[in-house]
Amino acid sequence: MTSSNPPISGDTRLFAIIGDPIAQAKSPALFNRLFAELGANAVLVPLQVPAAQLPVAIAGLKALANLDGIVVTVPHKVAILEHLDLLGVHVQAVGAANCMRRLADGRWQGEMYDGAGFVAGLQAQDIQCVDQRVFLTGCGGAGKAVAHALAGAGIAAIRLVDSDPSRQHELARQLRAIHPRLQVSEGGHADTEHDLAINATPCGMAAGDPLPFAIDGLRPDAIVADLIMKPERTPLLLAAESRGHRIHLGRHLLENQAALVTRFFGLQETPVTASTPHPGENP
Amino acid sequence: MTSSNPPISGDTRLFAIIGDPIAQAKSPALFNRLFAELGANAVLVPLQVPAAQLPVAIAGLKALANLDGIVVTVPHKVAILEHLDLLGVHVQAVGAANCMRRLADGRWQGEMYDGAGFVAGLQAQDIQCVDQRVFLTGCGGAGKAVAHALAGAGIAAIRLVDSDPSRQHELARQLRAIHPRLQVSEGGHADTEHDLAINATPCGMAAGDPLPFAIDGLRPDAIVADLIMKPERTPLLLAAESRGHRIHLGRHLLENQAALVTRFFGLQETPVTASTPHPGENP
Repeated sequence: MTSSNPPISGDTRLFAIIGDPIAQAKSPALFNRLFAELGANAVLVPLQVPAAQLPVAIAGLKALANLDGIVVTVPHKVAILEHLDLLGVHVQAVGAANCMRRLADGRWQGEMYDGAGFVAGLQAQDIQCVDQRVFLTGCGGAGKAVAHALAGAGIAAIRLVDSDPSRQHELARQLRAIHPRLQVSEGGHADTEHDLAINATPCGMAAGDPLPFAIDGLRPDAIVADLIMKPERTPLLLAAESRGHRIHLGRHLLENQAALVTRFFGLQETPVTASTPHPGENP
Repeated sequence: MTSSNPPISGDTRLFAIIGDPIAQAKSPALFNRLFAELGANAVLVPLQVPAAQLPVAIAGLKALANLDGIVVTVPHKVAILEHLDLLGVHVQAVGAANCMRRLADGRWQGEMYDGAGFVAGLQAQDIQCVDQRVFLTGCGGAGKAVAHALAGAGIAAIRLVDSDPSRQHELARQLRAIHPRLQVSEGGHADTEHDLAINATPCGMAAGDPLPFAIDGLRPDAIVADLIMKPERTPLLLAAESRGHRIHLGRHLLENQAALVTRFFGLQETPVTASTPHPGENP
């Protein structure tokens, strides 16, 4: 990890993350490290945008000709849809966006990489999704994004649990409609059928929170994942670790999502081969 | 000069410079160096705001709760006045602002430090203003700011020249009204009466520009100054240097203005004495 950012000059391209609160956000450090690694003359800054100010703030940000993209976080991930001209496939499935970019024609396109970031985070830790059986609690924005991405990555089955039955039913209905071969069940507990058990509720962020779900029914080889980033090791993960389960931290989602969003923003290493055609190839 | 900025985190306070174009702006590098020297967790970013977009951009920037101040440059220095709640004394004199800050009560206060920056730049080079006789060509925004600041710093006389007689008359009228003891004259040439001759026109920015005024009437000990920053040595300054005059570069204004604006933004070193009262003093 570098301890500094490249100098900002007049021609530095601008990116932002909008949220409220924003002081706790890890994205500025994360994205600026990625930008520096790519050698991009670009910077991402945190912007605290109260919910009621979203329309005027977004109109203003769109008016900045050197601002190329925005990362969107709580509480704006659903409300931002009204300000997008084009919705990426993941936005359409999840009904929320976590980033937007300015296209060459001036329109703004939104995308949702929270779920893809979680799946990429699993893969970066050599955890495969194909044919896995998943227990997921929390069917809000984060849970929806993760469920759709896991379904797209080829899991065999998912059991959904939410304290709000209508959210649970709605996600189950969506998943069945889009992924007819996925086995979707509702309610119940994490048990011996599950290879991966995931917490997508906020339960575990506050001191004294109970466990979001019981883990004593899981097989010893089941993996326990939490989307919560702070604390890094939630009570759920500590309990799972003490029972010998492999655990998967929330920060893997953020780190891998940031890499995907950076690419979405058009910032990526130019393939070396692009400027050095093979002998005999047309340039 | 440091080659990097401190890392940007979620709680970094945000400042911006708005202008169009903005890619050439030296202020981001300059301000971020000053912020780093002060140990401030703050960053200034360049924002390209087309003139027609100023109202919507400013409304959006005001909606960002962690943005504390804005540097204003061409073409917005006059138009920005409509978006200010309080006008600093220099703004009222010049009719333009080069910076604005958010007050504790949410109102925005504008100030104009271009002239004060020029005077501070002279002083930093040990060039005193008191009782000096000045020749100034260019009575637009920059010239106005410099003329008012020089008058406030105690010069004895100023001769104003502008290709637009109404601008020249208007500035002469203003100066006479505010500084009744200042000797103000109009038209004519830089000659042996002048201690300091200043170019505040854009003439010298483009290759092949003629000199903005003839220097062959000046005394050898007269100082020739140019507000133009690029090229650093304009044809005027090169000609003056070759005739043996001391010259004063445009960047001194920018550097000293940036220090003044940084202080206006509330970023400054805490005086050591503030927390260590002298023995016998009440705390």
